[in-house]
Amino acid sequence: MSSPKLKVAIAGLGRMGSRHALHFHQLTPRAELIAVSSPDPKEIAWAARNLEGVRTYLDYDEMLKAEKDLQAVVVSSATVVHAEQAIKAINLGLHVLCEKPLSTSPEVSQTVVTAYRQSIKKHPSQKVICGFSRRFDASYRDAYSKVKSGMIGRPSVFRSQTCDKLDPSGFFVQYAQFSGGIFVDCSIHDIDLALWFFGEDSIVKSVTAVGITAVSPELRQYNDRDNAVGIVEFYGGKIAQLFCSRMMAAGQEDTTEVTGTEGKLSINAQPQSNLVNIYDSTGIRREIPPHYYGRFRDAFITEANEFTACCLDNTEVPFRLEGAVTAVKVGAALQESLITGKKIEFDEIGRRIQEEQAPKAKL
Amino acid sequence: MSSPKLKVAIAGLGRMGSRHALHFHQLTPRAELIAVSSPDPKEIAWAARNLEGVRTYLDYDEMLKAEKDLQAVVVSSATVVHAEQAIKAINLGLHVLCEKPLSTSPEVSQTVVTAYRQSIKKHPSQKVICGFSRRFDASYRDAYSKVKSGMIGRPSVFRSQTCDKLDPSGFFVQYAQFSGGIFVDCSIHDIDLALWFFGEDSIVKSVTAVGITAVSPELRQYNDRDNAVGIVEFYGGKIAQLFCSRMMAAGQEDTTEVTGTEGKLSINAQPQSNLVNIYDSTGIRREIPPHYYGRFRDAFITEANEFTACCLDNTEVPFRLEGAVTAVKVGAALQESLITGKKIEFDEIGRRIQEEQAPKAKL
Amino acid sequence: MSSPKLKVAIAGLGRMGSRHALHFHQLTPRAELIAVSSPDPKEIAWAARNLEGVRTYLDYDEMLKAEKDLQAVVVSSATVVHAEQAIKAINLGLHVLCEKPLSTSPEVSQTVVTAYRQSIKKHPSQKVICGFSRRFDASYRDAYSKVKSGMIGRPSVFRSQTCDKLDPSGFFVQYAQFSGGIFVDCSIHDIDLALWFFGEDSIVKSVTAVGITAVSPELRQYNDRDNAVGIVEFYGGKIAQLFCSRMMAAGQEDTTEVTGTEGKLSINAQPQSNLVNIYDSTGIRREIPPHYYGRFRDAFITEANEFTACCLDNTEVPFRLEGAVTAVKVGAALQESLITGKKIEFDEIGRRIQEEQAPKAKL
Amino acid sequence: MSSPKLKVAIAGLGRMGSRHALHFHQLTPRAELIAVSSPDPKEIAWAARNLEGVRTYLDYDEMLKAEKDLQAVVVSSATVVHAEQAIKAINLGLHVLCEKPLSTSPEVSQTVVTAYRQSIKKHPSQKVICGFSRRFDASYRDAYSKVKSGMIGRPSVFRSQTCDKLDPSGFFVQYAQFSGGIFVDCSIHDIDLALWFFGEDSIVKSVTAVGITAVSPELRQYNDRDNAVGIVEFYGGKIAQLFCSRMMAAGQEDTTEVTGTEGKLSINAQPQSNLVNIYDSTGIRREIPPHYYGRFRDAFITEANEFTACCLDNTEVPFRLEGAVTAVKVGAALQESLITGKKIEFDEIGRRIQEEQAPKAKL
Repeated sequence: MSSPKLKVAIAGLGRMGSRHALHFHQLTPRAELIAVSSPDPKEIAWAARNLEGVRTYLDYDEMLKAEKDLQAVVVSSATVVHAEQAIKAINLGLHVLCEKPLSTSPEVSQTVVTAYRQSIKKHPSQKVICGFSRRFDASYRDAYSKVKSGMIGRPSVFRSQTCDKLDPSGFFVQYAQFSGGIFVDCSIHDIDLALWFFGEDSIVKSVTAVGITAVSPELRQYNDRDNAVGIVEFYGGKIAQLFCSRMMAAGQEDTTEVTGTEGKLSINAQPQSNLVNIYDSTGIRREIPPHYYGRFRDAFITEANEFTACCLDNTEVPFRLEGAVTAVKVGAALQESLITGKKIEFDEIGRRIQEEQAPKAKL
Repeated sequence: MSSPKLKVAIAGLGRMGSRHALHFHQLTPRAELIAVSSPDPKEIAWAARNLEGVRTYLDYDEMLKAEKDLQAVVVSSATVVHAEQAIKAINLGLHVLCEKPLSTSPEVSQTVVTAYRQSIKKHPSQKVICGFSRRFDASYRDAYSKVKSGMIGRPSVFRSQTCDKLDPSGFFVQYAQFSGGIFVDCSIHDIDLALWFFGEDSIVKSVTAVGITAVSPELRQYNDRDNAVGIVEFYGGKIAQLFCSRMMAAGQEDTTEVTGTEGKLSINAQPQSNLVNIYDSTGIRREIPPHYYGRFRDAFITEANEFTACCLDNTEVPFRLEGAVTAVKVGAALQESLITGKKIEFDEIGRRIQEEQAPKAKL
Repeated sequence: MSSPKLKVAIAGLGRMGSRHALHFHQLTPRAELIAVSSPDPKEIAWAARNLEGVRTYLDYDEMLKAEKDLQAVVVSSATVVHAEQAIKAINLGLHVLCEKPLSTSPEVSQTVVTAYRQSIKKHPSQKVICGFSRRFDASYRDAYSKVKSGMIGRPSVFRSQTCDKLDPSGFFVQYAQFSGGIFVDCSIHDIDLALWFFGEDSIVKSVTAVGITAVSPELRQYNDRDNAVGIVEFYGGKIAQLFCSRMMAAGQEDTTEVTGTEGKLSINAQPQSNLVNIYDSTGIRREIPPHYYGRFRDAFITEANEFTACCLDNTEVPFRLEGAVTAVKVGAALQESLITGKKIEFDEIGRRIQEEQAPKAKL
Repeated sequence: MSSPKLKVAIAGLGRMGSRHALHFHQLTPRAELIAVSSPDPKEIAWAARNLEGVRTYLDYDEMLKAEKDLQAVVVSSATVVHAEQAIKAINLGLHVLCEKPLSTSPEVSQTVVTAYRQSIKKHPSQKVICGFSRRFDASYRDAYSKVKSGMIGRPSVFRSQTCDKLDPSGFFVQYAQFSGGIFVDCSIHDIDLALWFFGEDSIVKSVTAVGITAVSPELRQYNDRDNAVGIVEFYGGKIAQLFCSRMMAAGQEDTTEVTGTEGKLSINAQPQSNLVNIYDSTGIRREIPPHYYGRFRDAFITEANEFTACCLDNTEVPFRLEGAVTAVKVGAALQESLITGKKIEFDEIGRRIQEEQAPKAKL
């Protein structure tokens, strides 16, 4: 195709960054991946082998400086630098697709939105989105359009879980130091979905959470748990029930149900890798994807293509960046509740209601 | 309950006979099991232990003679004596529930019908039915009523399979000597279902079958196979596709599909033992019943109760005995086709169309 | 069968009482239903028509007095008289199967246990159980035995829901006046299951609940809701997530999942009426039972038969009566949390931990 | 990517051709679509709008002549010119991906193979494959690798169906004039799958088929049917059961089952559009793809990418062209049997066994 392509760079080449790189390099016809950055020489070596013709940088700032033609940046580095890198790109007027979460802190997340609000005054066609991949998933989209059509009446009860396969390598324990906790890392997707299905303007009334360490007691040193359940109550008569886990035996189980006054939709209530069923002496079974990427690969590719189209054609982004701050805020509050054991309440304009005598000792 | 109960005897206490005995003894409130017969002393000993208060006989004729109050007989002996025992009871004016098949021979099967047609002149409220248990199954009945309601338009293509779990004990090989072959033993249920769903007055136009011995080559000495597929063509634009097997790994797989001009129904397309799903490192699975009884237990109990009610209340039997002869006729023709490799055709009044020069050698 | 049968009376002939009556009358071979009582003349008239040979009473006490041979009573009257009627029968040394809940009040429920503890000293073979029907369900039992076998490791996270079909008649609103609330009426089953799967000796650490009135705001006058979610936290690292609803569109959805450290079991995650699937222009669908009885009929019949056997043979009851008090206690606490919005905590010996400064106004 | 791309042309821009064009234009990074041809000006106009930078031709020969840099041709024109166009490209030494079937005639299909066998002597790295899209489907591939691994023992009974949604527009009737009949058009995929799963060297022993016109009696004028079932028997104890239909109510139902001596695999036994389930007053349902493209889109894209890689890297093609001739041969024999009502037999080297006295009248 001879049309101009969107010149894209990727920051970070870890688990997700390397996938983004391949998606933009090979599976996004309207994009041209021109550069990648990573502080890790091994990741740079991987890029040299796998991303033919793409320039590599050990330093993100240097990449931004050197790549004069750059139009868009995908931030998929460590969460701790998401906001900083996103803001640098935003301030240059570049389009940004920033991996979730913007930050594990609601306040820091807000700085990304603030930067974007400033920058867009100068660059009115600038696009910045947070990578809530499920928003690009065909099944979630189908469910959303059915809800919008009124098929289930008024959506009222939402249940969603993000449950990872047990990883005996200790990965999740290491990761817990920086992840913001299981509610910020896993459930942020479910929170974002709740906001999507209930309406972005939904106001959280309270959150409560409880958790355990069933397989990884080491998580406690990082104020984290390996299984947790939570309730998010919204003003206007809507409730969300959440479950996150690092302990699934069969594989990734990311299931959502939306119950309305006239019907219900489930998404992935019966996880499966593909359309094969196996009949053997143990019964009839299907395999399920071991990781989130097995479930959401197509969504990530759609994300890459739609982000690209959005930037090139100056069309509206599929969802607003502000939601990413709300999601972090809710996730962080759930994580706090998980650790303190306290229910946290908010007023109708989103301000936290202080408990009169919060028992400090437990915090 | 103080109402008079139907006095019932069971002939034969093998695999199915012993179950019938327990059903009539314990799970059929309006019936009273008063006697059982079996030529096998071990089975009689079983009866003594398990059928409290029930008289036992080593000889069927003796039982008929001694039990003056007897009102109904359930014939569940070896297939080879089904017809003879049924006819004896019929001639005494007793109600009869005869296990399928009436006989492996269509001609002998017909003698049962003939005896009944004679006897009913003298005993106008006499009931004789063949034990097509699936006719009493809640799922098949639901499907049938949906078809009758017009939900799928005109039923046109029928697919059904009766597939047993692999039994490495050699049971099926021994059994093949007397079973009439896999199409008479297994597929007779599917043939009966086809007649039910297409209409009892459906006329078979042709049958063809092909089979293999994948696990039990010894079956060939009895002109049988362990896996076979067949096609039954009906006049009026209806076709049935059959599969029978002795080799299933997971358990009993008895599945039926009825495709109509405006919809389709499947029955047991996803076999299951119960509502439990197991998630482990191999995926998500459900267990399935190992044998037909696990799938059809409730149907057998319904059969016992409805047969009893029918006899006591002199209400119409749920299906006519003549169909049992047609089913054997079709099953035997399929079995012949399986062995000869020849398609067998019938004219519109059910007479076999002779091939002009049937290659005798192959028969 | 000539063995002596258990002489049973039923108290209450409402929705569930009439079913118990039929189960004991027709489907429990070792029981003989001899009497029923109901203050409602219409129910007595129903009994006269449907329970041939069974004596009827408008007054429960009179029945107890008159039926000298009575051995067992099934209490299935209005919840408000469960405890009183059960205790009267207990004090007479009769076996009792009391419908759930013993009472909507934990304290009153405890009086039943206390009465039984007293009575059993004089009547050591007396049996008293609470009618937790799911304990008799084949799928739950299969799941339980799999958990016991260690199949899923240590059960850690439990999710269960009891969700009724939307009933536009207003039944649930009327019913709410006496039901104890949705957590006591519906979720009591799920709580009992949690205690079963986690172990009867599990100690509740906290409960929290949130609810809405999505379709029946009138419920608020009775301090009830039509949809609610709750969390029950147990000492020892176990959590239960509950959902109850009166608003399901498709039918009864009673689903349970038990996640362990090495696997997971789901029970009824894909509700279905039977094994039929319907293919039409809207897709492929299965129907689901409209009410709990469609799902649990077999369990109720098993309950009747096993209770009978237990009484006749003086064998151990399948679960202890004390659990019924714990279940009510947890259900009532969840209901309180639902209304007050407060998390309720318990110490390790089950005593409620008082909040230091509970904001009285909200209670 | 700066590596040289495979220069591809598409012949035919109908239903499938236009999709191939888009797949190669946008979703095959290593290919460059440089030209398309179609005798239909409307299709050429479509190409001008949708295939930016791609040259268009009303004449296939002219395209071949003009496009000097062309390396590969995708033949997706009307079936009647498949072979001719494929051979022209083959004779120029071009790589060819020819849509199925090569021809509706086994003899004509063979000419393509013969041309390739000749040409490859001069162009040893030339690739020619037939577009059996299911060979590229992730689920079929997973099933195949499981069979290869021995998971189900020796595959013995194969059941497969290609069932199209009812199309009331009359499309299928028009199409029947040139399609070669339902067994050549639809079942050819199932036949190819049987050959794949049983082994490409499997020898057909006999075919039999029966069919009806349940909704489109007009098909009879073209010797076609709207529903048909067939049996393909292979030497060595293997059988395939086929069903093809133009009458499905719910959508495309392409289901396959492979039963082996130690297990079974099903592929798409429960068709679905995506992972959404809808709960409403009619039950629980999932939607299913209306057409084959909804089911196999990803497989077509994989096909485009793998064909491209194969040509560029001179790696082995995933399956041999000869199988496409066998598939047409079997499909055409089934279609003949469907019309004549005769079973057709073959000897062990694939030659048809003549019936001694074929009743000419019926042919």
